[in-house]
Amino acid sequence: MVKITIVKTGYIATTTLIDALLDERASRKNISVRVISSGCKMNEGEAADIGNIAAQVPTDLYVIISPNAGLPGPSRVREILKVTGKPIIIISDEPSRKIAKQLGEEEGVGYLVLYGDPMIGAKRPFLDPIEMALFNADAIRVLSVTGVFRLIHSELDRVIDEIEHDKEPVLPMMIVNKTRALEHSGLRNPYARAKAMAAFEAARKVATLDVEGCFKIKGASNYLPIVAAAHELMRTAARLCDQAREIEKANDSVERLVHFKDGTLKRKTKLLGKFE
Amino acid sequence: MVKITIVKTGYIATTTLIDALLDERASRKNISVRVISSGCKMNEGEAADIGNIAAQVPTDLYVIISPNAGLPGPSRVREILKVTGKPIIIISDEPSRKIAKQLGEEEGVGYLVLYGDPMIGAKRPFLDPIEMALFNADAIRVLSVTGVFRLIHSELDRVIDEIEHDKEPVLPMMIVNKTRALEHSGLRNPYARAKAMAAFEAARKVATLDVEGCFKIKGASNYLPIVAAAHELMRTAARLCDQAREIEKANDSVERLVHFKDGTLKRKTKLLGKFE
Amino acid sequence: MVKITIVKTGYIATTTLIDALLDERASRKNISVRVISSGCKMNEGEAADIGNIAAQVPTDLYVIISPNAGLPGPSRVREILKVTGKPIIIISDEPSRKIAKQLGEEEGVGYLVLYGDPMIGAKRPFLDPIEMALFNADAIRVLSVTGVFRLIHSELDRVIDEIEHDKEPVLPMMIVNKTRALEHSGLRNPYARAKAMAAFEAARKVATLDVEGCFKIKGASNYLPIVAAAHELMRTAARLCDQAREIEKANDSVERLVHFKDGTLKRKTKLLGKFE
Amino acid sequence: MVKITIVKTGYIATTTLIDALLDERASRKNISVRVISSGCKMNEGEAADIGNIAAQVPTDLYVIISPNAGLPGPSRVREILKVTGKPIIIISDEPSRKIAKQLGEEEGVGYLVLYGDPMIGAKRPFLDPIEMALFNADAIRVLSVTGVFRLIHSELDRVIDEIEHDKEPVLPMMIVNKTRALEHSGLRNPYARAKAMAAFEAARKVATLDVEGCFKIKGASNYLPIVAAAHELMRTAARLCDQAREIEKANDSVERLVHFKDGTLKRKTKLLGKFE
Amino acid sequence: MVKITIVKTGYIATTTLIDALLDERASRKNISVRVISSGCKMNEGEAADIGNIAAQVPTDLYVIISPNAGLPGPSRVREILKVTGKPIIIISDEPSRKIAKQLGEEEGVGYLVLYGDPMIGAKRPFLDPIEMALFNADAIRVLSVTGVFRLIHSELDRVIDEIEHDKEPVLPMMIVNKTRALEHSGLRNPYARAKAMAAFEAARKVATLDVEGCFKIKGASNYLPIVAAAHELMRTAARLCDQAREIEKANDSVERLVHFKDGTLKRKTKLLGKFE
Amino acid sequence: MVKITIVKTGYIATTTLIDALLDERASRKNISVRVISSGCKMNEGEAADIGNIAAQVPTDLYVIISPNAGLPGPSRVREILKVTGKPIIIISDEPSRKIAKQLGEEEGVGYLVLYGDPMIGAKRPFLDPIEMALFNADAIRVLSVTGVFRLIHSELDRVIDEIEHDKEPVLPMMIVNKTRALEHSGLRNPYARAKAMAAFEAARKVATLDVEGCFKIKGASNYLPIVAAAHELMRTAARLCDQAREIEKANDSVERLVHFKDGTLKRKTKLLGKFE
Repeated sequence: MVKITIVKTGYIATTTLIDALLDERASRKNISVRVISSGCKMNEGEAADIGNIAAQVPTDLYVIISPNAGLPGPSRVREILKVTGKPIIIISDEPSRKIAKQLGEEEGVGYLVLYGDPMIGAKRPFLDPIEMALFNADAIRVLSVTGVFRLIHSELDRVIDEIEHDKEPVLPMMIVNKTRALEHSGLRNPYARAKAMAAFEAARKVATLDVEGCFKIKGASNYLPIVAAAHELMRTAARLCDQAREIEKANDSVERLVHFKDGTLKRKTKLLGKFE
Repeated sequence: MVKITIVKTGYIATTTLIDALLDERASRKNISVRVISSGCKMNEGEAADIGNIAAQVPTDLYVIISPNAGLPGPSRVREILKVTGKPIIIISDEPSRKIAKQLGEEEGVGYLVLYGDPMIGAKRPFLDPIEMALFNADAIRVLSVTGVFRLIHSELDRVIDEIEHDKEPVLPMMIVNKTRALEHSGLRNPYARAKAMAAFEAARKVATLDVEGCFKIKGASNYLPIVAAAHELMRTAARLCDQAREIEKANDSVERLVHFKDGTLKRKTKLLGKFE
Repeated sequence: MVKITIVKTGYIATTTLIDALLDERASRKNISVRVISSGCKMNEGEAADIGNIAAQVPTDLYVIISPNAGLPGPSRVREILKVTGKPIIIISDEPSRKIAKQLGEEEGVGYLVLYGDPMIGAKRPFLDPIEMALFNADAIRVLSVTGVFRLIHSELDRVIDEIEHDKEPVLPMMIVNKTRALEHSGLRNPYARAKAMAAFEAARKVATLDVEGCFKIKGASNYLPIVAAAHELMRTAARLCDQAREIEKANDSVERLVHFKDGTLKRKTKLLGKFE
Repeated sequence: MVKITIVKTGYIATTTLIDALLDERASRKNISVRVISSGCKMNEGEAADIGNIAAQVPTDLYVIISPNAGLPGPSRVREILKVTGKPIIIISDEPSRKIAKQLGEEEGVGYLVLYGDPMIGAKRPFLDPIEMALFNADAIRVLSVTGVFRLIHSELDRVIDEIEHDKEPVLPMMIVNKTRALEHSGLRNPYARAKAMAAFEAARKVATLDVEGCFKIKGASNYLPIVAAAHELMRTAARLCDQAREIEKANDSVERLVHFKDGTLKRKTKLLGKFE
Repeated sequence: MVKITIVKTGYIATTTLIDALLDERASRKNISVRVISSGCKMNEGEAADIGNIAAQVPTDLYVIISPNAGLPGPSRVREILKVTGKPIIIISDEPSRKIAKQLGEEEGVGYLVLYGDPMIGAKRPFLDPIEMALFNADAIRVLSVTGVFRLIHSELDRVIDEIEHDKEPVLPMMIVNKTRALEHSGLRNPYARAKAMAAFEAARKVATLDVEGCFKIKGASNYLPIVAAAHELMRTAARLCDQAREIEKANDSVERLVHFKDGTLKRKTKLLGKFE
Repeated sequence: MVKITIVKTGYIATTTLIDALLDERASRKNISVRVISSGCKMNEGEAADIGNIAAQVPTDLYVIISPNAGLPGPSRVREILKVTGKPIIIISDEPSRKIAKQLGEEEGVGYLVLYGDPMIGAKRPFLDPIEMALFNADAIRVLSVTGVFRLIHSELDRVIDEIEHDKEPVLPMMIVNKTRALEHSGLRNPYARAKAMAAFEAARKVATLDVEGCFKIKGASNYLPIVAAAHELMRTAARLCDQAREIEKANDSVERLVHFKDGTLKRKTKLLGKFE
């Protein structure tokens, strides 16, 4: 049994379901998951505190997930957990690409930098809990259909398997761009794939607009239209992904990769068919 | 500063964002949130373990969230945390209605039993991480638009405020049915509201179908159509909610209730308008 | 030539087209159809009157269609027609399940109890002729795509054929639930089928909500949202069915079962293909 | 109490609900409705037979509904019922415009010639009971939203009222074209109205295409695409009407005109508002 | 190298892209295209002026495109260009059918009379540049998907090829009705084809309504609803075409016919496949 | 009467309708428009040729429209026309921003650099005349709804008016980014505006993807998914714009700015209302 401790500080959309991706039916015998989180906050104090809790939890593999892994809070978590000597994988969003090289080459830390998990439009007159939740629902859909979630759990599954079999785990060091993501999407119809890729890139544009609206533009009457546009684009990206999956359904070609009790993944496509 | 520790064992859709609902922009000064989770698993051993971790975390208010609060795992967490003497609020799904009375009257524990957060179609040939994530995206949308998420954070905010001001907190003891949920939806157009209510009830039917498919029907060729139908109904419920919100957007009457730094909630409706 | 007399008292959605289902192009040589109806009303007096007219019409097979076959009006029609000694088939909606056993075992009357033909939201401030007609349009779509209409005419066709060939007709005694209906849907894509099944169950929820809104809740401000939600759910169920059929169209796999002049049914699927 | 006998021979979409339009909640005290129908067939023999039955039913007002009122069957019904001396109103589809003048001026018979109730694509390799039912569902939607059904029951209500109050009834003699229909649609938003008018005219084009496909073109490979196109256009017209009504819902301006127990019509628009 | 001069006077939707259809990637070596246009105006003076400019341009083939080729302006262009002795092909909309015979038999001029390129709703209170542009966007979609644009460039390509190889060009003389258009649509799914044909005929109805609204009805309150309905119908026709193409995408059967550098057309269907 | 000569070399989406935007109903008395175009090709030879034709046409204002105004062909046209001494306005797409300063400051030439008019996916295995036309239909919709077309004709109208009144025309020198475009959109609902802005930015992303697919990626299996994704994103952007306009229709707040005969623009919003 491999013990995985997931440390969450601050929120990206992947934060919502990262642990669930590993054991979607709670039936896997070869892993035990713990999550320690500071919720939305990710300043250094909050982060250090959960880092310290996590460091006490018996663990074979740490996964740290946060926005921009280069910020002080997530960096602090990483420093604390590095002391344990356990393997660490960072999962974060596009701004983390700036420290990716450092993480991998210098720190020996694995990373998955997710380009399709966009910053939210975090301006007070616009973002309330409901708008926030809807944005995350849209982002989850995009991450699901474009292959990002599949890629994440596949990489984690591989590392877990290596640990379980006492191999030296090869930590993933990957920028998850549109090409790498789509390879894991399982989409077979080329137009469904094109729609998903379009959604992925639209999601990146969402991030660009939200950064502009949140940090570069002054005055609510100027930034509100921009963050609102970002969220409309996010909704649209989610709908494109929905269309892509509906095409696969219409062709009965939805790929499923399911965790069995021993942690192996088996594949099937036809809904009423068998696992390969 | 009120210290809130959220203990998650097993998954309902609300699990994904419960902590984020309290502090959507990570800017609130009067709370500090810790989350301790056992991921998807919720058996007694896993649950006891995270209960014990959580019991060590300095806390003013515990929130326990899980499927069916009457199961051994969630019950065990509750027992462990009751020893701390801190106030406890249970958040769970419809099957928990059976122990609601006991929780409130006998144990003095608060509860929010959410009727619109449906069980997933957890059959191996159907449910993989991607299908699971998409189901949650749909459920998040329904819970957001129908008022469930608003009701949850409003109740928690009220209790937090009472604790912050050294009052005896009045723990919520509430079955969140369609009427109570919709009161918190902020939907102004009566047809938007009708669509949201329809979605809420459809989500409950999803649960019924998933229970039938997962526990009552034998043979994959018999239960697969049923769980697939449940997920199609969930997707449809989410789309209905999307339509409801689009109506409000078209009327520029989307209600926003935003957490300010001191934890107070302020309301606005017109996108380019002011807070009330 | 088999003489069929259809007696309609009160309205369910199937009432609108029951006779048309038997002879969609008015070209069938082996049947003659008469319909006697009291329109929307179904009290005992109205029902008795049309029962008496129908009893005078030369008939080989009676079909009685009404809401809740256990109510006094429909029961009265049945009593009157039983005197003729001709075979009788009752077609009615879900509440009739309560007398199904009695009909079949004690009275020797055939029945088709249709679970997907839901009660309307018959509250005065809500239901006008246009709303009523639209609800029926939605219900017709659901009954068409989910297999209910196919099942009905197939059973009637079988009985007609038995009568035509001087066999003792085996009267149908069937609760038309989601499984039995879908078997007759002809839908080949499993997701199309799942959508149709979801619609079927949503339609049953519509009935539940309309019963609640019409009979259990007092005060227009309380019941209006519920009956409006029921109708929104009905519209959504119809749209789901439309999506299901569009999938079959996209695969050119729409099943057609057409009445030929001699009453036999022939099947084809490809639009430009031949009958089997 | 006014006794209305509706005689149906053959099918247009209005046939399905004509009697229901008069008493949508079965609660009207001032009318009693009887329907006598020959189902889909409308040849002279079938028509004469139901004409004779209907002539025996105590009646204050006859309504005859059929395709093309100039055909032998419907004409025969009319002849039989004229002998009773009771007022007669013909309801029929666009081809009846050719005998409208004769009906009104020469025969003293009322008529409503409905331009938006189109002929179906009645070719054997295409039209089965399911396709037929779906076509009718679409047509019912168009007739409901464009004002045709409202116009029909308003005219009948007026005549009923005149009979009830012992006035000489003024029988309607009206070609129901797009302008007359839309006046009764109750649509307030001008674009909703434009969509409905577009649907009305599309429905007329459906008839043109079905006439072409059924009567003018030889060879299944030639006429099948045309009747299939006609039905696609019908589906589209229905969707346009759905959009029109959704606009009114979004503005909470759906007009409702409801029959009260004494047969009077009261109007309301806001869903949660009062009758005027 | 074949020199083609396209003379445009007034606007139909095909005017927008007629030259682009011949060389979609600007990579064709065997043609050189010149366009001379008088913009929206097409009176005799404007038309004569551009006819004279065009007559000076070295040309192997003239294409004249305008509304109603029988009007004085377009006729004047034709007269001027006929003097050059070069082959002329007229492309125009449905009203030109009246002079088609004269063009072909008497004048020896080729023609393509496009039935699906409808007149716009050119009433001042309704039509501004934005409405005009959107109408054209819709019309372009219909002309693209229904096969009209394919037919046009195929016919022009054929004539160009004949000129290039010094053959006597056979000028097209064709009424482009629904059947001829659809033959060029490349749509393989029969329901996609039916949707496209429905759109084509709806577009013709648009023309009928616009003619009625622009020329036959007096008073803005009378004609505005009609031209608005026409444009709604046009939007709907475009959406039908979009659905048709989406079906082909879902089946990966979109037909592409691409101009190679030497002007030959090669075909492919699977997006990631090869040219035939 | 102001004489405007529009010179088109190569294609952007605005090319299709630029002249029509000035005189949508062909009823304007104060302008005369000539268009001279080389079709899709824009190399130096073709461009010079049409430049020379255009230089001969009596003209008060030249408008040159092409992709990337800095390329040799468009530059050559500009050089030729500058010799005439007449005012020149360049309309081009985003890559032209690089020479905007030079055009304005050094050459005294006006310019409108349109950020929302994206490059097409011009790869041979993907782009045929139909795909090209559909891309343009989508782009026209985006340019119409987001305000770009309104801005273009407003600026041209202003210059025309200055010339007509013998003023020194102030040539526009403007980068048409999302903010400037949206100011001209006339959209009143803030969410409609947000959708339009999202579409505008999505269209820019289309350009980025098409540049990547056309110029940076080798191998059809690598670039085809990218250009296909770009076109899917373009389709989605168009649909977003359609939704935005539908919102305005639902609120009867579509802004119309119509050219009167004397060239003045008058505004109205309510469809059945008056000009201001």
